[in-house]
Amino acid sequence: MIEYRNLRIALLGAGSVGAQVADQILNHGDELAARIGAGIELIGVAVRDPKSQRAVDIPAHLITTDAAALVRQADIVIELMGGVEPARTLILDAINAGADIVTANKALLAHHSTEIFEAASQVGAQVYYEAAVAGAIPIIRPLRDSLAGDRVTRILGIVNGTTNFILDRIDTLGESMEDSLAMAKKLGYAEEDSSADVEGYDAAQKASILASLAFHTHVPIDLVYREGITEITRDQVSAARQAGYVVKLLAICERVVSADGTEGVSARVYPAMVPDTHPLAAVHGANNAVFVEAELAGPLMFYGAGAGGVQTSSAVLGDLVSAARRHVIGGPGVAESTHATFPIVPISGIRTRYHISLEITDAPGVLADIASLFATHGVSVESVEQKVTSVDGQAATATLVIGTHEAIEADLAATVDALEASAVVQRVVGVIRMEGL
Amino acid sequence: MIEYRNLRIALLGAGSVGAQVADQILNHGDELAARIGAGIELIGVAVRDPKSQRAVDIPAHLITTDAAALVRQADIVIELMGGVEPARTLILDAINAGADIVTANKALLAHHSTEIFEAASQVGAQVYYEAAVAGAIPIIRPLRDSLAGDRVTRILGIVNGTTNFILDRIDTLGESMEDSLAMAKKLGYAEEDSSADVEGYDAAQKASILASLAFHTHVPIDLVYREGITEITRDQVSAARQAGYVVKLLAICERVVSADGTEGVSARVYPAMVPDTHPLAAVHGANNAVFVEAELAGPLMFYGAGAGGVQTSSAVLGDLVSAARRHVIGGPGVAESTHATFPIVPISGIRTRYHISLEITDAPGVLADIASLFATHGVSVESVEQKVTSVDGQAATATLVIGTHEAIEADLAATVDALEASAVVQRVVGVIRMEGL
Repeated sequence: MIEYRNLRIALLGAGSVGAQVADQILNHGDELAARIGAGIELIGVAVRDPKSQRAVDIPAHLITTDAAALVRQADIVIELMGGVEPARTLILDAINAGADIVTANKALLAHHSTEIFEAASQVGAQVYYEAAVAGAIPIIRPLRDSLAGDRVTRILGIVNGTTNFILDRIDTLGESMEDSLAMAKKLGYAEEDSSADVEGYDAAQKASILASLAFHTHVPIDLVYREGITEITRDQVSAARQAGYVVKLLAICERVVSADGTEGVSARVYPAMVPDTHPLAAVHGANNAVFVEAELAGPLMFYGAGAGGVQTSSAVLGDLVSAARRHVIGGPGVAESTHATFPIVPISGIRTRYHISLEITDAPGVLADIASLFATHGVSVESVEQKVTSVDGQAATATLVIGTHEAIEADLAATVDALEASAVVQRVVGVIRMEGL
Repeated sequence: MIEYRNLRIALLGAGSVGAQVADQILNHGDELAARIGAGIELIGVAVRDPKSQRAVDIPAHLITTDAAALVRQADIVIELMGGVEPARTLILDAINAGADIVTANKALLAHHSTEIFEAASQVGAQVYYEAAVAGAIPIIRPLRDSLAGDRVTRILGIVNGTTNFILDRIDTLGESMEDSLAMAKKLGYAEEDSSADVEGYDAAQKASILASLAFHTHVPIDLVYREGITEITRDQVSAARQAGYVVKLLAICERVVSADGTEGVSARVYPAMVPDTHPLAAVHGANNAVFVEAELAGPLMFYGAGAGGVQTSSAVLGDLVSAARRHVIGGPGVAESTHATFPIVPISGIRTRYHISLEITDAPGVLADIASLFATHGVSVESVEQKVTSVDGQAATATLVIGTHEAIEADLAATVDALEASAVVQRVVGVIRMEGL
């Protein structure tokens, strides 16, 4: 029996994940080979700066700055550089040169998945990207394969570890946003420029990937609605906790039926109040979890480490073994399934529930005024809680917390505009959506 | 462009899962076809009794009792009959006739996986079995593919919905074992003969499948240690709860290093005390969850519905789409990875912690006697709690609850034998293992 030749593996990037992947291939290559059915050989590691310090030593002769030359010699290219370019060009070149692809690049997939999947499909190349969403947690294969015979109706995902770490500290330790963010930076959970995390850009990219997979349709990143956690206050988090909720930054992917019966999908990211009995409420620290609802399967949850070089290398190496097994036994990769062409419903068309805090002038008739203002805009009030907070001469100020039934976002927005314009409302303190009910 | 011909699907069995699968193929065939890239046609449904009542109507012309003839005409055979024969013969015939296989048959896989995977490998056929373990929860692909580059160290699984339903009612409602079992039968969670569930046979089959997959080795069902829940009492469950634990029937798959450094694996099923803070403790009702620990990924959890015809059909249909996609694009199935040949460690060689309840004669020196008896057998005591329970003239009886440090099962068993023989011990009330610490 002829032994299959060694598979040639090229690694692009040697950051926290890449260095671990190199280490595993170099030190556990025999075990991986046994699972693949052929030997593997790391033929090179492309880096920007050969001199930079790495978590794990990589033999100097493997290091190169010529990524373009490296990918043309590989059977399988593992792309862990991040960012759109040069990753996009290198991956397209590698696909056209006959390589299969493993990538953890969520930004690239969120912006250019159509182009990449199309190029792969043309030549029968495989593209794996388990590490692009929720780190070590297997979520891509479950959605792409295990649930391919079902209809996913909704995904609620905690897919950004940094923001979950911050919100969890505010909730459990009563820290301020500033202190939690500083701690996240100190512990390496957040980068110096934390905007990709705290503004929700990272989660939005993952929402685009998850929604596209789950609904067999293309959900462009520009159509993912996004709000970060920067406006969230300690008071809001503690008020939510007292009301039986936990504030989480959620990536939400949902099938939506409009009033006229049109089916569409929504992908959106915002901080939301989740009931404290919901499984997502128990996701602490920098962990991730993806809660999936499907017509047949019912609710499912996938939980684990959402970040970390070592943890994420697990997902990358799983993809490597999958790509290599197929490379050895032959046959093309399975193309992405994007047969559905759902319209993407904008945030204004979404139905959800809201929690609105107001400072109002406490006088007879004010509550009726405010209630009628909600009614005028078609938003039905479910609960009202009023507390007198200060009395200044004749004028008393009260805090009013209003929970709504399900309402259309556009109606809610119009209600909030009207509240802000109202003479009896001193201030709209906060508006937060409620999910997972 | 020539359109791929319809794929011919044969269904064996039309019970609670099979009827749902037929219904989905018949009523959502277009959606499945779009995801597959080819049409599918249900060519027949083999049943034992054509006249029996089904959850979903199946057109009479599809019903047949000649399963042997049916499988020879199929591209993909979905086997949902359960039991070893005739399922085994039909699947082997189908493989040799060129079909790919989707099965939910845990008993068959636990007893004959080697034979079936070998036959499939010979001809490049695919065998999918996501529905065989934990119903709708995607766990097979995560273990087989997503974690294929990692090293799984331990699995703790709640993989039998019936026993979890029963134990959960005892815990949360304070019901007796008898009442909970009766309710499980009434609600259809348990069959009239409940021994496969309550004696742990079902969970043991799943442990064999999970351990084989996770450790890339063959773990025969006869080497899976098994205890059911029939000895568990309401008192035990409530005492555990008071001590901060929940009693769960666990399927445990573990990599074990013996004292002499030999690596092996263990697969075992027994009721165990799990800390109430462990994610598995929050798995209620008939739900399932699989908690996986891997060297790189760290802890992961997969949660959802473990049974139910509709829910389980999700897993079967996902497998159908996977098998059909590969059938259309060509190339053989990926063979199972069983390169490792770990010895299976018997229960006597397992290290875990124990919780032992004794009725003792409460007299000076008794506690010292019992403590030295543990020490003699090499079992280290971690906690002791004593309560005087009755005083009868001169002789007082006390209940003693002893928690141990990690100990070898054989040493613990010898300790229990010695306790039973001891003059100061009136009765060994219960011994229960502790997991997930």
